[in-house]
Amino acid sequence: MLDRDHHTFTPIGVVRSPYQEKFAIPRQPGLAMVDATIELTPLYADPAAVEGLEQFSHLWVIFVFHAVDAQRLGEWRPQVRPPRLGGNEKLGVFATRSTHRPNPIGLSVVELLRIDTNEGVKLHIRGADLLDGTPVLDIKPYLPYADAIENARAGFAPSAPARLQVRWCSEALAAARTYSATLQQVVEEVLSFDPRPAYQDDPARIYGVLLAGCNVRFRIDESGAEIVDVTSVGDAAC
Amino acid sequence: MLDRDHHTFTPIGVVRSPYQEKFAIPRQPGLAMVDATIELTPLYADPAAVEGLEQFSHLWVIFVFHAVDAQRLGEWRPQVRPPRLGGNEKLGVFATRSTHRPNPIGLSVVELLRIDTNEGVKLHIRGADLLDGTPVLDIKPYLPYADAIENARAGFAPSAPARLQVRWCSEALAAARTYSATLQQVVEEVLSFDPRPAYQDDPARIYGVLLAGCNVRFRIDESGAEIVDVTSVGDAAC
Repeated sequence: MLDRDHHTFTPIGVVRSPYQEKFAIPRQPGLAMVDATIELTPLYADPAAVEGLEQFSHLWVIFVFHAVDAQRLGEWRPQVRPPRLGGNEKLGVFATRSTHRPNPIGLSVVELLRIDTNEGVKLHIRGADLLDGTPVLDIKPYLPYADAIENARAGFAPSAPARLQVRWCSEALAAARTYSATLQQVVEEVLSFDPRPAYQDDPARIYGVLLAGCNVRFRIDESGAEIVDVTSVGDAAC
Repeated sequence: MLDRDHHTFTPIGVVRSPYQEKFAIPRQPGLAMVDATIELTPLYADPAAVEGLEQFSHLWVIFVFHAVDAQRLGEWRPQVRPPRLGGNEKLGVFATRSTHRPNPIGLSVVELLRIDTNEGVKLHIRGADLLDGTPVLDIKPYLPYADAIENARAGFAPSAPARLQVRWCSEALAAARTYSATLQQVVEEVLSFDPRPAYQDDPARIYGVLLAGCNVRFRIDESGAEIVDVTSVGDAAC
């Protein structure tokens, strides 16, 4: 499996999350308080393998950016345009957390809520920025004495992005509440981080995003985000 | 390259460090203030790819535990014995940072000292716990607002391990100083973290470790570590 030129890994788990498309996923973990699950794959779903993990409040998830356009994987580009810089300025790919990188490996710290070993092994997590279906390569405990560097200097992204106010059209809110008990909170968390591409600023434009089995339509103007419509996708309640 | 069952990655860089064997490498990054280098491999050694990284004081290195016994890679074991627990207690592999894990992927945060783009691309780093020759899969900036979780709870490893006093036999110190200007500091940093296996406590036993091209022999008793001998390996000055 190991040689000098390439390294092959098999996922040890898969993410189940409300994020059903890349659009609108917050650009770092820990921003939107959205719950998700990591299900260990059958080969690794041994409760012994997570024994002691409950002693940790947070864990690292090392995963694959599996939804990156496969055609773009072959051609590596040394620079990207981070949304935090308005989408105009280019930076080296290794100076960013862009998903478009030579090896499409992601890294996120998430809060560990609880571990369910009743049927397989499921880690219930909070704050993930992980697309539904994400293959997980590794899970490690978060060690604050090694990992928490408070005084680190962080160039163009020194602090969390500002948040938007979120308001609902009354019919959209009523619909969301009929679909699921948690949808309102998920939608508000996600839209507060302004998912629009950096170069778009049209207050009349209606965006749609698939979240937790629902198609959520919204627009954003200077006063914040407004959810105009929520519909369930297919037969399933979202 | 991407399918459901496995993911293959090509290293983007390689580590050059004084750690020439696994023995005595501190068990987390940021403990021993030892300098190392990441050299981007020729395909990725484009200065444009690291533009902007100099704005960050720290970076994540995602790497391969390449020296893990290849024979042990096929057989995954759900539990390991962390040295922090004295080597007696078993814990789930995903609750530890053990190198013996289903996917031998490592994660370390290191300080970025400077970037050298005169000939290829070299990142000078400090605090690495990385074996010389380690294949690097990815480099990402450290974002304190997302990555620094000060109040995280960390079960069996809540704080950095205690450090030993380090003293030298005078001839060993004289030898070290003739070999290199930095060897003394490297040796003191490394041995202060007590590299002995958890179950060994024989004050008469002499250990040897290959560090920065030198064979360093030492013993450890209740008063600390004592370096008894330093010899250069081969012709090269260490």
